Amino acid sequence: MTSRQGPLVAVIMGSKSDWETMRQADEILGQFEIPHECRVLSAHRTPAETAQYVDQAESRGIEVIIAAAGGAAHLAGVCAAHTLLPVLGVPMESASLKGLDSLLSTVQMPGGIPVGTLAIGPAGARNAALLAVAILANSRPALRDKLRQFRKAQRDKVLRETLP
Amino acid sequence: MTSRQGPLVAVIMGSKSDWETMRQADEILGQFEIPHECRVLSAHRTPAETAQYVDQAESRGIEVIIAAAGGAAHLAGVCAAHTLLPVLGVPMESASLKGLDSLLSTVQMPGGIPVGTLAIGPAGARNAALLAVAILANSRPALRDKLRQFRKAQRDKVLRETLP
Amino acid sequence: MTSRQGPLVAVIMGSKSDWETMRQADEILGQFEIPHECRVLSAHRTPAETAQYVDQAESRGIEVIIAAAGGAAHLAGVCAAHTLLPVLGVPMESASLKGLDSLLSTVQMPGGIPVGTLAIGPAGARNAALLAVAILANSRPALRDKLRQFRKAQRDKVLRETLP
Amino acid sequence: MTSRQGPLVAVIMGSKSDWETMRQADEILGQFEIPHECRVLSAHRTPAETAQYVDQAESRGIEVIIAAAGGAAHLAGVCAAHTLLPVLGVPMESASLKGLDSLLSTVQMPGGIPVGTLAIGPAGARNAALLAVAILANSRPALRDKLRQFRKAQRDKVLRETLP
Amino acid sequence: MTSRQGPLVAVIMGSKSDWETMRQADEILGQFEIPHECRVLSAHRTPAETAQYVDQAESRGIEVIIAAAGGAAHLAGVCAAHTLLPVLGVPMESASLKGLDSLLSTVQMPGGIPVGTLAIGPAGARNAALLAVAILANSRPALRDKLRQFRKAQRDKVLRETLP
Amino acid sequence: MTSRQGPLVAVIMGSKSDWETMRQADEILGQFEIPHECRVLSAHRTPAETAQYVDQAESRGIEVIIAAAGGAAHLAGVCAAHTLLPVLGVPMESASLKGLDSLLSTVQMPGGIPVGTLAIGPAGARNAALLAVAILANSRPALRDKLRQFRKAQRDKVLRETLP
Amino acid sequence: MTSRQGPLVAVIMGSKSDWETMRQADEILGQFEIPHECRVLSAHRTPAETAQYVDQAESRGIEVIIAAAGGAAHLAGVCAAHTLLPVLGVPMESASLKGLDSLLSTVQMPGGIPVGTLAIGPAGARNAALLAVAILANSRPALRDKLRQFRKAQRDKVLRETLP
Amino acid sequence: MTSRQGPLVAVIMGSKSDWETMRQADEILGQFEIPHECRVLSAHRTPAETAQYVDQAESRGIEVIIAAAGGAAHLAGVCAAHTLLPVLGVPMESASLKGLDSLLSTVQMPGGIPVGTLAIGPAGARNAALLAVAILANSRPALRDKLRQFRKAQRDKVLRETLP
Repeated sequence: MTSRQGPLVAVIMGSKSDWETMRQADEILGQFEIPHECRVLSAHRTPAETAQYVDQAESRGIEVIIAAAGGAAHLAGVCAAHTLLPVLGVPMESASLKGLDSLLSTVQMPGGIPVGTLAIGPAGARNAALLAVAILANSRPALRDKLRQFRKAQRDKVLRETLP
Repeated sequence: MTSRQGPLVAVIMGSKSDWETMRQADEILGQFEIPHECRVLSAHRTPAETAQYVDQAESRGIEVIIAAAGGAAHLAGVCAAHTLLPVLGVPMESASLKGLDSLLSTVQMPGGIPVGTLAIGPAGARNAALLAVAILANSRPALRDKLRQFRKAQRDKVLRETLP
Repeated sequence: MTSRQGPLVAVIMGSKSDWETMRQADEILGQFEIPHECRVLSAHRTPAETAQYVDQAESRGIEVIIAAAGGAAHLAGVCAAHTLLPVLGVPMESASLKGLDSLLSTVQMPGGIPVGTLAIGPAGARNAALLAVAILANSRPALRDKLRQFRKAQRDKVLRETLP
Repeated sequence: MTSRQGPLVAVIMGSKSDWETMRQADEILGQFEIPHECRVLSAHRTPAETAQYVDQAESRGIEVIIAAAGGAAHLAGVCAAHTLLPVLGVPMESASLKGLDSLLSTVQMPGGIPVGTLAIGPAGARNAALLAVAILANSRPALRDKLRQFRKAQRDKVLRETLP
Repeated sequence: MTSRQGPLVAVIMGSKSDWETMRQADEILGQFEIPHECRVLSAHRTPAETAQYVDQAESRGIEVIIAAAGGAAHLAGVCAAHTLLPVLGVPMESASLKGLDSLLSTVQMPGGIPVGTLAIGPAGARNAALLAVAILANSRPALRDKLRQFRKAQRDKVLRETLP
Repeated sequence: MTSRQGPLVAVIMGSKSDWETMRQADEILGQFEIPHECRVLSAHRTPAETAQYVDQAESRGIEVIIAAAGGAAHLAGVCAAHTLLPVLGVPMESASLKGLDSLLSTVQMPGGIPVGTLAIGPAGARNAALLAVAILANSRPALRDKLRQFRKAQRDKVLRETLP
Repeated sequence: MTSRQGPLVAVIMGSKSDWETMRQADEILGQFEIPHECRVLSAHRTPAETAQYVDQAESRGIEVIIAAAGGAAHLAGVCAAHTLLPVLGVPMESASLKGLDSLLSTVQMPGGIPVGTLAIGPAGARNAALLAVAILANSRPALRDKLRQFRKAQRDKVLRETLP
Repeated sequence: MTSRQGPLVAVIMGSKSDWETMRQADEILGQFEIPHECRVLSAHRTPAETAQYVDQAESRGIEVIIAAAGGAAHLAGVCAAHTLLPVLGVPMESASLKGLDSLLSTVQMPGGIPVGTLAIGPAGARNAALLAVAILANSRPALRDKLRQFRKAQRDKVLRETLP
């Protein structure tokens, strides 16, 4: 999604194969009309570029960073080490350990450098975007209203479900 | 900690025994002079009071809710279900499964209702407070400066460490 | 299944996608001719409606609540917090952690608010219904006789199995 | 606890060392004045006596069986195989795997023979007794009133908690 | 396999669906020309028949019992409780927890009642038969020679493997 | 324990620190008056001596090998690779992973080379000895009688247990 | 790959079925033009040949051994016991436990006999080869230059990734 | 340990509290008279200094980097991202998850950036140093002789062990 003003949320992921999952975050942010950008940046294969990107995020006007990675998932932690912005981590579902490795290496951060971690896989991607919206909404009343409508629609959808 | 203006952060926990861990969050918030309040509220033993407290949080001016619980740790999820505010979850270290149960029941939220989850135990308590500070700092430049100094002090402390 | 008298068992599930598993409970209850109703109600997306539904269950004559959910599976615990009726929990097999998250967040309830938890997935759905039958049978001798016949048929089926 | 009328609840455990945990169930049942009996019976070391005890439970007027065991915890499953009564299982916290083995071998019962499983350790012991009370209360209104008072007292205790 | 003399090894399994795995044991025993019989017997659905079968095994001349089950896999433990013969357990690969539940509920037997446990799934089925052969071979030199040849053939097969 | 005739059971362990656990096996074998020997031999630190010891076991008249190790516990598997005798494995309770590593690396043997694995820690040590007794008893009726008395005494002990 | 000079790296695997994964190591070593050889050798089925192969590796000029195995994966540890050369272990993704067993039985080596362990499955195979290259490059500047180019190409590939 | 020539091995750890474990690596390297240095450097709290230190390691003559960290243990991965040198990772035993988090976040590196991972805790610290020695010994025959003597002494120590 290209944004007219600078992006408010950065969505970065360690590998292009994570896009299949992270497009869920992109869709939610688009639905809320949040200016954002999505990038592939690896904590391990492009450490300098990742550090530089994250170091500059604050001055570019970004307010939340969403970082997704799998396996020994260091991306969110590396982001958090390089910025004062809130960082949200999404553990990818990994091939062998089904995301338990991604989850533990994203959430078990040492005291001092927080990463707010969401669920493994698509639900986590979706929720990272929604948590970013909630954070932005703290100082944007119109956005909070949209969030209220989103929640109401979601509730109504459940209430309309019928079983065979 | 009593606060002169209304609290910006609510720290709630499922049991008084969680205080030993959650005082770490209280201390960090105090150190940053963030008006906040700490309460014992149980998703299971006081569901109505918990729902009511969380329902009113937004209108009381609270901007972030930190919820800590152990075992089948539903508190953060229940909070998230009742508010549009960002909710951060801290999994307590449980007696038998060492917090793995607390972690999974806090972090694995379904798409639609996010909880930003921190590490199990004291590091998570500390980091929930720091993430709340980062969220508040998005619209409070002076707070971001304090956070920058905190990070710098933390960095300098590591760099001064000497080994025998 | 529509019931002529009011339902004795409520089967609720967090998402319509759980029906594929929970129809096993529906079938068992139907087989025993237990009046019951099946509903989609989410602890997180419809918290008020869930609380209201559970609050009224006792006065509607319901005697057992079966609650099924996956991931951070709070539904059974939330039900148990709102009723004095016996609550049985069925952990859904989740996408990434294969139901370990669902199991731990259903079974590891704190002292005071019990959830009787069954196995992950279809076997658990089936067994939740059978345990509900056993509970109802305590004060309904005819139902216990049916249960005795069910068990006998099940035993005979095993004894008739032949291997190639 | 000796009971004037025949026991309504049987609490059995695989080893005398489980008593330290299971006295929590005994205390709750005593508090609710439920006639009950506590016995050591092992699925593995006294299989015939266990089968005989459980086979006779229904005719002795017992309405709920609580079975506690650790490690390869077969006691609850073996009870369930021998009775039509509702069986509740309490996984003991085991020495090496901290009760994960006890939990899985109690809860993962195959379709057809249900065990309603509670949390690992003392919280589970306590909750097994409370779930037994809820089951008995279905046909005993006075007991349900006591349960309502118990829950209220428990709620009030949480609400009275103060933090330093 | 029907055996001319009475069977030396009993292979029992909790469900007919385990046969797909346990035929590996049947094949190995057939290959070594060990008289044996394979039966479906459930610890939970046919407890009396299982106990009776195992109680009589010793007097029928059986020397080793192989028991296979999944989930809360109590079959091997229940066998061991009813016989002085060596009992070998094979944990089935279960649907949700991939056999971790079967493994722990088979291997973690309390002191006093041993079950010699093999690997989860087909490798375990095969190895249970080979361990039974090794046990029988202690007093049958001709069988030990066959086992020696089997091992040699197995070794030679590995040594002949070529990679592309 | 020195034995007048050659040993029938070899108890080997990877480290002297395992003796605290394995003395349970030694005591059981002593109680049954089984000639046996206990040795420290490491799969990793003394591979040649271990291989040689195991290679010679059969010709020395040994009938069962019990091997205990912790962590990446290869000892039982290495023994099994070098002998046709039945090999029983005892996983030690390890410092960090509490024996889960020891268990998986002992029990998950590939098809072709079986290790009959017992429980983690002291119960496993005790049961390895009892399973060895059961194996030896197949061709020693007097030993089976002793085992019958042992089981009876064990059963009677449970039946005599009284609760406060 | 046949090599003109003697091999510098030995890639051994416990079963031919591991080749599907380990060809990734073969490809990387080929890409760096490292003389190497790939062999099937089993710790359990061909212990003598494995020991002999590893014992001779040093005198044949091999500098790094890569060993891959699954389940109770003893191959890397057995190699390490027989050589002073650096041994790298690759845990195979196993059928039931998804490689957790392979990982723990490769990495949890006791003090004194190290195995440098890589990730489960293909990523680990690839990385074992790359770590072998890094080790060889310590005394081969031209190889380090190739490694630098490899890393640069890898980085550039990430930077060129575009999202839809 | 100060070294007269420049260090060949760098031992870095994320926190001073890791020293209690990592002194085992220091002692082994000292025993082999390998010039080395030990430093506290955090991937999260001092990311720039860590990157700079690792970037310069190769030009300073360092040949192996040993990195130790706990929880979401990113230090070894971050080192590997910044150097072509072989990086060995030591997972610290963490408070709540006992090092499983540290292990998975160290070992499960994505293809392209290898970390050779050792066991959790002191055994891993010791073995990281021994693996570094083995790597250095590839081009230093005298060091390989020392390693041979170390192994021999270790073997002799096991062979001298006596049991009570």
